[in-house]
Amino acid sequence: STRSPFKTHVDLLPALDGDLKTMTFLQEVVDILLAYITESFDRETKVIDFHYPNELLQRNNWELQDEPETLDDILISCRATLKYAIKTAHPRYFNQLSTGLDMVGLAADWLTSTANTNMFTYEVAPVFVLLEYVTLKKMREIIGWEDGRGDGIFSPGGAISNMYAMLLARFKMFPEVKEKGMSSVPRLAAFTSEHSHFSIKKGAAALGIGTESVICIKADESGKMIPADLERKILEAKQKGFVPFFVSATAGTTVYGAFDPLIAISDICKKYQVWFHVDGAWGGSLIMSRMHKWKLDGVERANSVTWNPHKMMAVPLQCSALLVREEGLMQNCNQMHACYLFQQDKHYDLSYDTGDKALQCGRHVDIFKLWLMWRAKGTIGFEAQIDKCLELSEYLYNKIKDREGYEMVFNGKPQHTNVCFWYLPPGMRYMEDKEEKKKRLHKVAPVIKARMMEYGTTMVSYQPQGDKVNFFRMVISNPAATFEDIDFLIEEIERLGQDL
Amino acid sequence: STRSPFKTHVDLLPALDGDLKTMTFLQEVVDILLAYITESFDRETKVIDFHYPNELLQRNNWELQDEPETLDDILISCRATLKYAIKTAHPRYFNQLSTGLDMVGLAADWLTSTANTNMFTYEVAPVFVLLEYVTLKKMREIIGWEDGRGDGIFSPGGAISNMYAMLLARFKMFPEVKEKGMSSVPRLAAFTSEHSHFSIKKGAAALGIGTESVICIKADESGKMIPADLERKILEAKQKGFVPFFVSATAGTTVYGAFDPLIAISDICKKYQVWFHVDGAWGGSLIMSRMHKWKLDGVERANSVTWNPHKMMAVPLQCSALLVREEGLMQNCNQMHACYLFQQDKHYDLSYDTGDKALQCGRHVDIFKLWLMWRAKGTIGFEAQIDKCLELSEYLYNKIKDREGYEMVFNGKPQHTNVCFWYLPPGMRYMEDKEEKKKRLHKVAPVIKARMMEYGTTMVSYQPQGDKVNFFRMVISNPAATFEDIDFLIEEIERLGQDL
Repeated sequence: STRSPFKTHVDLLPALDGDLKTMTFLQEVVDILLAYITESFDRETKVIDFHYPNELLQRNNWELQDEPETLDDILISCRATLKYAIKTAHPRYFNQLSTGLDMVGLAADWLTSTANTNMFTYEVAPVFVLLEYVTLKKMREIIGWEDGRGDGIFSPGGAISNMYAMLLARFKMFPEVKEKGMSSVPRLAAFTSEHSHFSIKKGAAALGIGTESVICIKADESGKMIPADLERKILEAKQKGFVPFFVSATAGTTVYGAFDPLIAISDICKKYQVWFHVDGAWGGSLIMSRMHKWKLDGVERANSVTWNPHKMMAVPLQCSALLVREEGLMQNCNQMHACYLFQQDKHYDLSYDTGDKALQCGRHVDIFKLWLMWRAKGTIGFEAQIDKCLELSEYLYNKIKDREGYEMVFNGKPQHTNVCFWYLPPGMRYMEDKEEKKKRLHKVAPVIKARMMEYGTTMVSYQPQGDKVNFFRMVISNPAATFEDIDFLIEEIERLGQDL
Repeated sequence: STRSPFKTHVDLLPALDGDLKTMTFLQEVVDILLAYITESFDRETKVIDFHYPNELLQRNNWELQDEPETLDDILISCRATLKYAIKTAHPRYFNQLSTGLDMVGLAADWLTSTANTNMFTYEVAPVFVLLEYVTLKKMREIIGWEDGRGDGIFSPGGAISNMYAMLLARFKMFPEVKEKGMSSVPRLAAFTSEHSHFSIKKGAAALGIGTESVICIKADESGKMIPADLERKILEAKQKGFVPFFVSATAGTTVYGAFDPLIAISDICKKYQVWFHVDGAWGGSLIMSRMHKWKLDGVERANSVTWNPHKMMAVPLQCSALLVREEGLMQNCNQMHACYLFQQDKHYDLSYDTGDKALQCGRHVDIFKLWLMWRAKGTIGFEAQIDKCLELSEYLYNKIKDREGYEMVFNGKPQHTNVCFWYLPPGMRYMEDKEEKKKRLHKVAPVIKARMMEYGTTMVSYQPQGDKVNFFRMVISNPAATFEDIDFLIEEIERLGQDL
């Protein structure tokens, strides 16, 4: 490139007189990124330029070598990487619970990378530790804990947050488990709905509790946990000699977006003295909306809450909070007093050294993105963003619920932005043979999805659930999406699926 | 600001005609960051503008409000945040194992934020999944595993990588633990040196094994595990009915930088059929250096290796790899087959969907920084960077080992960049009363450190260890450091400590 009068990384800072070359190089990268951002929001561009893994491996030289490349080559690699990446900011990217790209969040993430520090002590991350303190307190106030009291931490994701909660619940009931392990503890039982996230089972497997000790509670037709079944299974477990120690209610299930009835569940937890966790990784953010927060009524009774701002609040990945009601418990559960990290004779208030509260030693700075977005939007800005996504999903639901060729997976208006439906191509609509129809229908969503990716026009998720064959799970967390994008999605499904 | 003809976040993309305002806003942020970078490398600036937590809370309005702020205010917040952040790129910032700021790594991290995706499937992160595949294979080749075969994953940090290794070791020996928990397993015993990282105990506590089952092996005077003591303690544990399942040898201990004798330890592991893990979070990177790789001789015999490029290779945080010799084990150990994530009827090779290999569901893209730096430097560039840091630490060691007022914590040339020493202020050098001297010496490093932070001139870590009172642990992982910075550190310690 004529714009790069320099050669390799050794010309950059900390090289003597490396300033100008560094600024030029970084500005060139920024120019690539800014162009990519503009393109990402443009509906005329593809969401994805899809290639199969082996093909993609061959379309570029991705290998690592002994010798350095020039900085021009590095810029080429940046462009190639973005060419084949998903445009997650694209208004028609609906594939995941985390979509969209917030401009203030992005700016904050760039700043975080530039500050390049670690959350374990106030000493090495003074501002970020304080911002985590301020933000967690605010989140606890919103949950409804008096004066925002309690504890919490940002973890690498909802699965880890849920595992931390399970770890705390076990330690609270049997503190000796920390030193003596599970051999000092009776057989434990955890409870969660059959629609809950698989991280509850993963956590139980890791913690030495075992997946068989995670007892699945029945959900009703719309995906909500049935409290009577919870109580019945707690009693059953007790009769079998298990000690119930953990109930995870889900606020916003992954597939249906269902909110478990938190008040009824909390009553049962109280009655049997079981830790009440709310997995609000997906739905927790609805508490920011005056219109939708009733769906989380009872969350204030929880012992712990997982809430992922990187999902419904569109904070860049990763940003997951675990909020804990009891103060000091996280520290007691996880601390190992490593004196090389947490010197007790330091010259400032050591309560800001958060590093011993979690399993991690170093911890990435995930807070600044959320904090800066909150400053830019205010609480009402997040509310507006969330309300708009729910309005779009209601629009989609109303549009397809009686439309020819569509069948809803469950009845009634979805509680979250999840709209689950089957699309039946014309040739399949009047089939007599129910079993044959089901078998064919199972193959429809995967083919339409594959075609979406090959055309690159949009992306939406599908999956089977229980005895239900593959259906589309549309979710809207992307603030860039509009009514027209919903219309487009439906047209696209019909265009790509009509011949099936 | 006169440069900002706009008001709030709603003017930015995805707003209609938001392109120009977005580009202007992001460019203003970039300008702030570029100025901060230049400043960070300037020795005339402070490493830190230190304030006590309560004071810092009051120096700015950090609170979160209902109402949005203007974008001008957001820029002010960015400047305030950086003002009080540590300049981790500063050539005189030595406080942690992770220091420095690599310009190509930073560019890569900015790109990662812009792509804002998640590692669990090829579908949502096609390029990044491939780059992880390519890089892990390369790292396994360097470890010495035939054709780079094996498995691995990038995790949120060394503590999690070590815990994943322990989880795999337990599952390998007792696969039923996944479903049945620890009640199906005999009492287990893990072994690691008394100088090892506290994450081994944290992992054992979390996994339900218990910290008492982590048996500490004696280290020699320079901090290396004594293999004979390992064998003795394995036999003792067996006699007591424990089942030895996991040995974690450390390649580069946190405080002394010691390398455990891997070959001798691996022989013992083989003899007793125990999983051999190498925690090379800190020292693993020395394998990139032809001059220093002998310190890791035997690592190729490991069942698993933790290796954090975000430490000695100066990749921006977070970047930690766990390498695993046996293929398929991670998947078997951790998979839960969540059909909403890992559809089995997708149109591409599903072996690239890595999400079920780990406890996490979503996983941050940590690979691109490492990959792009590797392209920019080549293997030889990392080697040069590592060799230089070791050369600087040897310079420091030679400079102070016979210097008046200094005492080394252990004899002999350090194996890693860790130089551990006491500084004795003049008034303390000829004290007769050994106990009184020890008591006073214990307070020297904390006071000097506090003064360093208040002046903001440099930062270096200190801690006690066993019966050794507080000493400085100098580490060098910052590629910006020079011989002059080492000279400065010594002068500064003497300047700040002479009156004590």
